[in-house]
Amino acid sequence: MLNSFLMIGQSNMAGRGFLKDVPLIYNHHIKMLRNGRWQTMWEPINYDRPNAGVGLAASFAAAWHLENQDSQIGLIPCADGGTSLDDWNIDGALFQNAVSQAKLAQKTSNLKGILWHQGENDCQPESAQKYGEKFAVIVEKLREELGDNVIPLLIGGLGDFLTDGIYGAYFASYQKVNEALEKFAQNTHNCYFITATGLTANPDNIHIDAQSQRIFGIRYFEGFWKKKHILKPLENESELVDTIYQRTLTKEEQKGFLDIQFSMGYLSLEAYTSKVSGL
Amino acid sequence: MLNSFLMIGQSNMAGRGFLKDVPLIYNHHIKMLRNGRWQTMWEPINYDRPNAGVGLAASFAAAWHLENQDSQIGLIPCADGGTSLDDWNIDGALFQNAVSQAKLAQKTSNLKGILWHQGENDCQPESAQKYGEKFAVIVEKLREELGDNVIPLLIGGLGDFLTDGIYGAYFASYQKVNEALEKFAQNTHNCYFITATGLTANPDNIHIDAQSQRIFGIRYFEGFWKKKHILKPLENESELVDTIYQRTLTKEEQKGFLDIQFSMGYLSLEAYTSKVSGL
Repeated sequence: MLNSFLMIGQSNMAGRGFLKDVPLIYNHHIKMLRNGRWQTMWEPINYDRPNAGVGLAASFAAAWHLENQDSQIGLIPCADGGTSLDDWNIDGALFQNAVSQAKLAQKTSNLKGILWHQGENDCQPESAQKYGEKFAVIVEKLREELGDNVIPLLIGGLGDFLTDGIYGAYFASYQKVNEALEKFAQNTHNCYFITATGLTANPDNIHIDAQSQRIFGIRYFEGFWKKKHILKPLENESELVDTIYQRTLTKEEQKGFLDIQFSMGYLSLEAYTSKVSGL
Repeated sequence: MLNSFLMIGQSNMAGRGFLKDVPLIYNHHIKMLRNGRWQTMWEPINYDRPNAGVGLAASFAAAWHLENQDSQIGLIPCADGGTSLDDWNIDGALFQNAVSQAKLAQKTSNLKGILWHQGENDCQPESAQKYGEKFAVIVEKLREELGDNVIPLLIGGLGDFLTDGIYGAYFASYQKVNEALEKFAQNTHNCYFITATGLTANPDNIHIDAQSQRIFGIRYFEGFWKKKHILKPLENESELVDTIYQRTLTKEEQKGFLDIQFSMGYLSLEAYTSKVSGL
């Protein structure tokens, strides 16, 4: 049975990296949930906003595939941009939606972990101070609802670029959120903190850029796979991204890719049929 | 409170019209459900597949807005490409997902109707013959789950282009499905049939093209608003689409549009700040 992961948090979990900036990840072993069913992953995975783009989940899944060539992985996209911990309260729509999507997914997959990235909307000093306390309530209820009180939870830090941009003042206390996340991970069973050190941003200095999201996904996978906190960049993270890009598409994937190109209007009927017959 | 509509069916409800082929519909009164919450509609609304594009729901909502200038409308996207009535069985994932999404939406909106378009995957003679019978079970259970046994249900016909394309043979019995849909609408309270007569397709001759989806949405709205079957094209349907396109964006919408362009990387920081300050 397919192994699945729940994506939850705000925009940097949904993904805002520009699609044009990085090579595609397209692999029939990697699925995403749509309307309660699985289909081959295509970015944006988590289409919460018009500007949804590249997130960390695609390279996370591809890194999983490097270690698990014969099994399938599925992503359950439930992150929502611009949301605070209060928005994620256990009686709210976001939480309820995530639980209902994860439960639907559990009917046809083994839920293996939760990928969390959130905190930008809790960078005000007062919110930052209460982060750990509020987060604990959400995590406890979420694990309970998913029927596994020790399901692995990966939580990434906020980027150091946040204070550099036009909205920089808003994020003045981002390090307090990072401290709270790291402390939470240190004190919670099967919870691992993933550093954002060295990651870079889109021109808005809020959203992690596409290249850095690829790297971040590798770090999340390392944390999951080795069951450990990732407190500094990995030596081989860029190399692993390159390995993922260099994978050759199977014939079936090449056909799937052509089908998509044709049905999006990027290939004429003639070009499509000629390319398909050439496979 | 916002008035909402459930989108359900297969690819031509999700929408496969090419986005590049038609002007944008962007209006702060028109929302879509994302993760259990409402946000301003942006196409593709129903992102079920990589090739999701323009469907009928956007112009349906815009036509609603022409008649209801002061209220808000919300769309609940649950259609899924390539699915048969058997896939929509009441114990299956698609049905359960649609019900759970609609119920979440009902917490913050008045559900006013169901927009259904499906049948291409039931064009085999045997399936076509059983269409009415199978569809009745789904509709009855759906209305029951939504807590309103007479909630309006709009059901569109299949396009006459289906038999013309490279997959034409597969659709040989499409008229039987259309007959079943029309008969079902005639015999069901608050259910209206909407003709696809005259609509045109993408080069695949399966998917209604973007311009025709705009027209189809106008017909769906006419059926809903006048509570009647639409058995032939409307005289003023193209004119209504033009009226929708000619709407001037409010200042707030212009700002929202620039925010999206910037955050997608289509505007530099300089161009963005200059344009925003010029509003």
